[in-house]
Amino acid sequence: MIRCSVVGASGFAGAELVRWLSQHPDVVLRSLHASRSAGERWERLYPEHQHLWQDKIQGFDEETLKGSDVVFLAQPHEASVRSAAQLLGKVGHIIDLSGGLRLKDPQAYEAWYGHPHPEPDLLGSAVYGIPELFGEDLPGAKLVACGGCYATAAQLATAPAVNLPGIHKDQITLSGLSGTSGAGRKADIALSFTMVSGNLKAYRVGHHQHVPEIQNSLESLSGVRPRLTFVPHLIPIERGILLNAVLCHDGRLDQEKVLAFFQEFYANAPFVRVLDPSKSLPEVNAVRGSNFCDIAPVVDEAGQSLVIVAAIDNLGKGAASQAIQVMNLVCGMPETRGLLYEPKLLLASGQV
Amino acid sequence: MIRCSVVGASGFAGAELVRWLSQHPDVVLRSLHASRSAGERWERLYPEHQHLWQDKIQGFDEETLKGSDVVFLAQPHEASVRSAAQLLGKVGHIIDLSGGLRLKDPQAYEAWYGHPHPEPDLLGSAVYGIPELFGEDLPGAKLVACGGCYATAAQLATAPAVNLPGIHKDQITLSGLSGTSGAGRKADIALSFTMVSGNLKAYRVGHHQHVPEIQNSLESLSGVRPRLTFVPHLIPIERGILLNAVLCHDGRLDQEKVLAFFQEFYANAPFVRVLDPSKSLPEVNAVRGSNFCDIAPVVDEAGQSLVIVAAIDNLGKGAASQAIQVMNLVCGMPETRGLLYEPKLLLASGQV
Amino acid sequence: MIRCSVVGASGFAGAELVRWLSQHPDVVLRSLHASRSAGERWERLYPEHQHLWQDKIQGFDEETLKGSDVVFLAQPHEASVRSAAQLLGKVGHIIDLSGGLRLKDPQAYEAWYGHPHPEPDLLGSAVYGIPELFGEDLPGAKLVACGGCYATAAQLATAPAVNLPGIHKDQITLSGLSGTSGAGRKADIALSFTMVSGNLKAYRVGHHQHVPEIQNSLESLSGVRPRLTFVPHLIPIERGILLNAVLCHDGRLDQEKVLAFFQEFYANAPFVRVLDPSKSLPEVNAVRGSNFCDIAPVVDEAGQSLVIVAAIDNLGKGAASQAIQVMNLVCGMPETRGLLYEPKLLLASGQV
Amino acid sequence: MIRCSVVGASGFAGAELVRWLSQHPDVVLRSLHASRSAGERWERLYPEHQHLWQDKIQGFDEETLKGSDVVFLAQPHEASVRSAAQLLGKVGHIIDLSGGLRLKDPQAYEAWYGHPHPEPDLLGSAVYGIPELFGEDLPGAKLVACGGCYATAAQLATAPAVNLPGIHKDQITLSGLSGTSGAGRKADIALSFTMVSGNLKAYRVGHHQHVPEIQNSLESLSGVRPRLTFVPHLIPIERGILLNAVLCHDGRLDQEKVLAFFQEFYANAPFVRVLDPSKSLPEVNAVRGSNFCDIAPVVDEAGQSLVIVAAIDNLGKGAASQAIQVMNLVCGMPETRGLLYEPKLLLASGQV
Repeated sequence: MIRCSVVGASGFAGAELVRWLSQHPDVVLRSLHASRSAGERWERLYPEHQHLWQDKIQGFDEETLKGSDVVFLAQPHEASVRSAAQLLGKVGHIIDLSGGLRLKDPQAYEAWYGHPHPEPDLLGSAVYGIPELFGEDLPGAKLVACGGCYATAAQLATAPAVNLPGIHKDQITLSGLSGTSGAGRKADIALSFTMVSGNLKAYRVGHHQHVPEIQNSLESLSGVRPRLTFVPHLIPIERGILLNAVLCHDGRLDQEKVLAFFQEFYANAPFVRVLDPSKSLPEVNAVRGSNFCDIAPVVDEAGQSLVIVAAIDNLGKGAASQAIQVMNLVCGMPETRGLLYEPKLLLASGQV
Repeated sequence: MIRCSVVGASGFAGAELVRWLSQHPDVVLRSLHASRSAGERWERLYPEHQHLWQDKIQGFDEETLKGSDVVFLAQPHEASVRSAAQLLGKVGHIIDLSGGLRLKDPQAYEAWYGHPHPEPDLLGSAVYGIPELFGEDLPGAKLVACGGCYATAAQLATAPAVNLPGIHKDQITLSGLSGTSGAGRKADIALSFTMVSGNLKAYRVGHHQHVPEIQNSLESLSGVRPRLTFVPHLIPIERGILLNAVLCHDGRLDQEKVLAFFQEFYANAPFVRVLDPSKSLPEVNAVRGSNFCDIAPVVDEAGQSLVIVAAIDNLGKGAASQAIQVMNLVCGMPETRGLLYEPKLLLASGQV
Repeated sequence: MIRCSVVGASGFAGAELVRWLSQHPDVVLRSLHASRSAGERWERLYPEHQHLWQDKIQGFDEETLKGSDVVFLAQPHEASVRSAAQLLGKVGHIIDLSGGLRLKDPQAYEAWYGHPHPEPDLLGSAVYGIPELFGEDLPGAKLVACGGCYATAAQLATAPAVNLPGIHKDQITLSGLSGTSGAGRKADIALSFTMVSGNLKAYRVGHHQHVPEIQNSLESLSGVRPRLTFVPHLIPIERGILLNAVLCHDGRLDQEKVLAFFQEFYANAPFVRVLDPSKSLPEVNAVRGSNFCDIAPVVDEAGQSLVIVAAIDNLGKGAASQAIQVMNLVCGMPETRGLLYEPKLLLASGQV
Repeated sequence: MIRCSVVGASGFAGAELVRWLSQHPDVVLRSLHASRSAGERWERLYPEHQHLWQDKIQGFDEETLKGSDVVFLAQPHEASVRSAAQLLGKVGHIIDLSGGLRLKDPQAYEAWYGHPHPEPDLLGSAVYGIPELFGEDLPGAKLVACGGCYATAAQLATAPAVNLPGIHKDQITLSGLSGTSGAGRKADIALSFTMVSGNLKAYRVGHHQHVPEIQNSLESLSGVRPRLTFVPHLIPIERGILLNAVLCHDGRLDQEKVLAFFQEFYANAPFVRVLDPSKSLPEVNAVRGSNFCDIAPVVDEAGQSLVIVAAIDNLGKGAASQAIQVMNLVCGMPETRGLLYEPKLLLASGQV
């Protein structure tokens, strides 16, 4: 059994980690940690998951954490990095869901995240975690920086595309639509129901911190660093991301061949479902609560543009369940282990 | 006083026409018509607007309509075209909100709308109605085809851009997000609350019928017919459109100059508000219920891409209030007449 | 293994049955049936559950159904009754989720449902199914009429109350709030997102067909048939019911004693969680997707009124999961069997 | 012209006051005040109302306020009371939207509001403001405490009922459903979109501070202080209240006579619309953005219970527009003045 702890358990991604880990057949959940919610009972924060954890949430406690094989960090960027620095070498494996260790270059970090990196020496130690694209780096890794939510959807959507012959892989346009849980569990008037309901808005247009993360990956996959225009939006749904990527082509793309190319690309990826757009398109309802990423490549009328539509759950494949998929590979298990049921354990199993 | 009738008054755009026309200081609303709802009392369909019309909705009735100076058509495409054919020359002016008369070429119509045009001879008679871009064609026009909802937002967003020096005006990428009222007032499981709430989906990717409408306009404004990739989305809000357009540039765009260029372009357009993106971005809440289009041009980090974000109310500037702005110009009035207050007349004025 | 079929599988309750049955450890799901959706592939209707059933939905087919141990009926009232009449004696057990067999008196049925009962002879054959209150009737039952959604919440909330000493058990006031899935999966303008979102309305005030169902049960539990005033509301959420019941008392109720009385009443009911209202109140989020009913009895300031607040998932304890709880007891299994995990099987188990 | 100021202009009720006052034909809006938002530009807080006020929001400033004929207070309870104490006698009229001055008894205030009253000497000076029920007290009043949102709906619903012959006016059961704007504009995780969307919950069951306010009024109207059980709910809509009240009767109520009684009771109340429940029931959509209260009395099957359903906009008749209706009467104008159009002035009138 793998002994796991979650740091940042009071946030939405942390709570999803608890939900998924509770049902993983090879996991024992040892401790939950958080800073602001330290001392509170889990059931008060997440009554819908009250049976998953019947104890309090602790503060960050190195002694407790040292006993864990895997520690998940679901804290804000800077806090996660500091936790990682403190724990590295003292616990088996650290899987970080924050953005703090995804970029390798501290100057790029500072430019996109708006503050100096708190632990630049740590940047070289982290492996980037999107199993479908960079899975070979994961077995045995001591520190993994999981891909961001938008970034995961964007990379899974575009990774096959940048290898299509004749595609303009140097220019990619992305529109991303995210539910409100992507902004985290916080008290903020701008995130209140009254302000969000019925409204649509774009934010950080051209300046979102996932841009260089996506560029880095696509450069490593295709040899070309793309110009990337990304327009993120805040949408009045609780969870889910729908994203589209547009690339141009000078010749004429064939819908059937492009579809076959995508299907082949993901033939061994159990969590990526490539849809035939003549039959259906990805939608949030079809992936909500799961680790799936649904993708459909669509060639437009003139055959010169390729639109790829992708849907994920921002708290699933965009955060918690991807982190568990990463853990499975880090620990030498099949990547689907514990991820094929929606793991909402509603009563302690001993009571059944 | 201008005597007005609304055909298709039971639909959402028709109801908005009633709402706006009821408060227009120069309008007398004479009759409401609809096919499926003929014989029903208006107040049963729209209790929130019960004081605006205290009579029944009639069926299509040429005799009644002949007495009107302006007839608004807010019917499905084919029905609107047939109504226009029947009324042309018999009423003062016809203002059509459907897509039936926006394209000039019957073959293009058939290709994008999926059925042969019911009255191809009529296509040459209609003037296209987006006042900010084609306002000079409107005074005295007998038949106007108002711009579509997405198409209005897209054209207002991109019309300045395609005239920026050095811009790649031959390739435009559009993502459009629309509320559910854009799909019309209909009984459809796919539009039910249970299916729409919490979900996000794209539809008609690369094949939406507003594509040629936008291409026609931009060609006439810039001399170049752009390649246009358009990804429309259905979003769980009642009303409103948020759209972004992305164009590339080889040199380096300057945010301040681009902003000034847009502001200059719309200096005389009272309903287009150009926002400085360093201060705020367009959002649906800021335009809902109004005839405004908010636009912000954003130059991305590298200066090589221009993102234009635009917000309108799909039932306002995207339908009913734009039709009244058109009427104002057709009839020789100031274009803002009757459009600067939200015209929800809650009691008959005689009762005040 | 219990061989099961679902008739009415295309509706929301039917789909939830498929979801829960797919993970039940003792169930083999044999066939799905529906009338309007006969011939369609399951995955087209419910893409989020595409891996649960990889075949078509059949029409009603007696030959196929005869091979099942348990047939669940999740059809409209009259259709369910007709299916029950056709299958009774030919299959092991029939578990009906409709309202067609809940009342014993055909005249009461006609008065409250608005049409004559299609099979009055069948009324005496059906056992009423709410396990916590009438569980002893279930083992071996051939035909069970499961409690209605509001009716289940109302009975679980009031059953302990009507046995409190000194309570006025002859007058009960109920307000019920239901999500839109309670109205079923249908094409109806009144259920469209545009009409429902942002709106609140009451319906069938004083005339809802669950009134006599609740009265019958309370009469059998307390010996007194209560006067029952019920105000149901349609609320813009997808699923969930929140209900409150108010009863008066002439003396002075003690909060602690009332709470203890409720806790004792449900001490052996694993799916009813009695909450201490000084700590938390029932809410839909805490029961969504589960078979739980959360209940809190609240004594008001003056001690003379008792308010009981209850929350269920209308598709869970109000429909599908309660039907499976019924099946467990009918078939001699523990009532919690298969119901303690959220049973969303996301890939066929053979693929793991 | 009446010179008006709004204190607490940054909140939702304050913003609605600005919206309505901007279009009132006899009002000049002189200044906006707030504490936390002092110094901010109005347009940043409410971009949808940017043309209504093109200046900053000031802090509380007695000198500025002294120049106003009417000062509206839309602050939290204690702050409003302190502002009233400071301004009384120095400005023409004070109209308070908070709950700070609604109860006459400082001990009752402390019991229900949870803190000692900050200015008990002021309690005798305030007139209670619900025009339909207590309008005769308003002309010339120096200090008015407007009715609360739930309390207004509850009193308008029950005031006719408690005078029906044979009704049990000593026991009233109320369920109230409110949108999130009722909780005010604040940063609170419990009000965040992610937590509110899809959820239903009751709160302060039996302990809501509007209970004694309603009891006081009904006692003064009927001579009997009713036992009142009130269950308030938080519902995922932005604005609007739907409330039902249930009273019992020993004889047999006649639907037609009860309806006629209600219609007669409100024959001279232009903002109360009594609906015939056989034709339609109140709903939030029909009153949103207006000063109307829609009411339907429903006699249940047995004729022994009367259910009254009422709908208001919590920010309209429940707050801002009712305060302006109060102002109209205080200042000797017709009560409907400025309230019969939805007063969303979208451009300064000088620009037309």
